[in-house]
Amino acid sequence: MRLFDFFKLSRRGPTSADTAKQRLQVLVALDRKGGGGPDFLPLMQKELLEVIRKYVEIEEERVNVDFQAGTGFSTLEVNIELPSETAKMAV
Amino acid sequence: MRLFDFFKLSRRGPTSADTAKQRLQVLVALDRKGGGGPDFLPLMQKELLEVIRKYVEIEEERVNVDFQAGTGFSTLEVNIELPSETAKMAV
Repeated sequence: MRLFDFFKLSRRGPTSADTAKQRLQVLVALDRKGGGGPDFLPLMQKELLEVIRKYVEIEEERVNVDFQAGTGFSTLEVNIELPSETAKMAV
Repeated sequence: MRLFDFFKLSRRGPTSADTAKQRLQVLVALDRKGGGGPDFLPLMQKELLEVIRKYVEIEEERVNVDFQAGTGFSTLEVNIELPSETAKMAV
């Protein structure tokens, strides 16, 4: 349950605006113990969002992206606020 | 730095087999406060992996997928162990 624990931790307290919303969070972490290697997470981000867009309606202004790169690691965090009942259930 | 903190937490202690490896972790969490809605995370999983495969070499046996669904949330966790210097740097 580690992931869910994190998800709960990262959640702000509910606000009236939040209560009716669905929220989708995508976290990508690359642990480059061997050092080096190009940072492909920012490039991959656009394509990951395209996949998600097949399943749910995404409004650009509701997408928040945070990328961080450090020595031996990079992380990409994408937070998307979805309108309720927005899932498209694509095949 | 919340994501990185989580990433550090979720890391097992290093083993001799780990030290030369890169690791890619993808976490997708859907917070369905409004209840209901279809669970599209398992469907999305295959397509997300296809995107990642464009950027890095993935061996099937090095991919570990965990899906959990509960009341009002679902989470998808994909852990991929990559050989060092495997990034393809696709465009």
